[in-house]
Amino acid sequence: MISIPIPAEVRQLCRLGKFDAPTPGLAPGFVQANLVVLPYDLAFEFLLFCQRNPKPCPILDITEVGFEPKLIAPGADLRTDLPRYRIFRHGELVEETTDITPFWRSDLVAFLIGCSFSFENAMLNAGLPVRHIEEGKNVPMYKTNINCISTKRFSSPLVVSMRPLLPGQVVRAVEVTSRYYKVHGSPIHIGNPEAIGISTLENPDYGDAVTLRDGEVPVFWACGVTTQTAILQAKPDFAITHAPGHMFVSDLKDEALT
Amino acid sequence: MISIPIPAEVRQLCRLGKFDAPTPGLAPGFVQANLVVLPYDLAFEFLLFCQRNPKPCPILDITEVGFEPKLIAPGADLRTDLPRYRIFRHGELVEETTDITPFWRSDLVAFLIGCSFSFENAMLNAGLPVRHIEEGKNVPMYKTNINCISTKRFSSPLVVSMRPLLPGQVVRAVEVTSRYYKVHGSPIHIGNPEAIGISTLENPDYGDAVTLRDGEVPVFWACGVTTQTAILQAKPDFAITHAPGHMFVSDLKDEALT
Repeated sequence: MISIPIPAEVRQLCRLGKFDAPTPGLAPGFVQANLVVLPYDLAFEFLLFCQRNPKPCPILDITEVGFEPKLIAPGADLRTDLPRYRIFRHGELVEETTDITPFWRSDLVAFLIGCSFSFENAMLNAGLPVRHIEEGKNVPMYKTNINCISTKRFSSPLVVSMRPLLPGQVVRAVEVTSRYYKVHGSPIHIGNPEAIGISTLENPDYGDAVTLRDGEVPVFWACGVTTQTAILQAKPDFAITHAPGHMFVSDLKDEALT
Repeated sequence: MISIPIPAEVRQLCRLGKFDAPTPGLAPGFVQANLVVLPYDLAFEFLLFCQRNPKPCPILDITEVGFEPKLIAPGADLRTDLPRYRIFRHGELVEETTDITPFWRSDLVAFLIGCSFSFENAMLNAGLPVRHIEEGKNVPMYKTNINCISTKRFSSPLVVSMRPLLPGQVVRAVEVTSRYYKVHGSPIHIGNPEAIGISTLENPDYGDAVTLRDGEVPVFWACGVTTQTAILQAKPDFAITHAPGHMFVSDLKDEALT
């Protein structure tokens, strides 16, 4: 019998320093989230950026100030309960760590942002293929020529993730993922990558290339990495994010996001 | 022939001081919005309150700082383009005016928040009755015993609007309004008012009572007045809102909110 860890157990293992690996596939059915931590004086503007760009930046929870995500995982501690973090100063990655307690300050606000795992589960349940899962890879992600709606300091090209589908599967994928409008929702583009400024699918800007089989069409969804590019571009004095793939595992069920 | 004013014309008439009446029914098919203006130092927390309570507080646009709602009505001037405003100091209504230019300050942030007119049009188009429109009244609104998710300074009971429907119309109304999840969306309660702390439908807290006909069920939707009660409760030094019913008429089409 394989025991499937529930979210609190995953978080506990992280807190005890016993788990620092990527989280895809852990605690299936529970929502995983991207983490962004910023000083309070940038919080309004970052939230405004997310509000203006809800498809790439779907907010799940925000600590008013502090490290407990009361809405999606009461009692959790965002300083220790993710497997791995990245520390940025002036937009430069300065350190990767498994515990940000030494870096915590009283003026920090934590943003938890939805990720595509939630709608990928729904796609699999609907019998749709998710190629990077089949191939044991990270999802391919690309910068597009679509600009997010910017704020004074935050701007970014829209970053998208791509999943190949047969034409007959595309409508179903739109239907299924549309229900998850709180986590990226429906695709932003179907077909020709060049139409959104992607010259080749073979060299993703992030993640791994996957196989596009005969007759398949690339389908593109808004991607949470957009928040990270916006932060790198704004170069805040100080910021913390999760390390790629090392997400926060919340108590929220995927179905709560439909 | 009756000429139907388009949004820019409504706004122009307001700006010229030639129109200061309620806006329901004006520029049909275009989104109307509640206005909330707050000093920048409260902006993050108010946006957080809205983000935590999206059903009563659906954000349509936010001026980063300033008075032009660039996303929903580029070129408009929020200081003059609504028919009527209310000025609050320390949570007390101090003045009603048709032009807030004299009150404007460089640190003010304007929030435009969706209202129920958008989904009511959709209900009418679907052949569903909207009783207060039939009866030429304001929609009945009630404070409930459901608390919004609060922030440090903003809290409010959920305020709801009510529309009576026959049981056979209720499911259709849920379907139709669910599509408008960017402006209150699906109902929050169907049936027994006491279950959500409303002792009698005959004395609404805001608006007018409407007729509940034989066999009809009261159906309740989250209401944007919730933002106003939250502001009154927080008693900010300074705030401006639209006067009830005197909304901002935007260039956005109702269909853009589905």
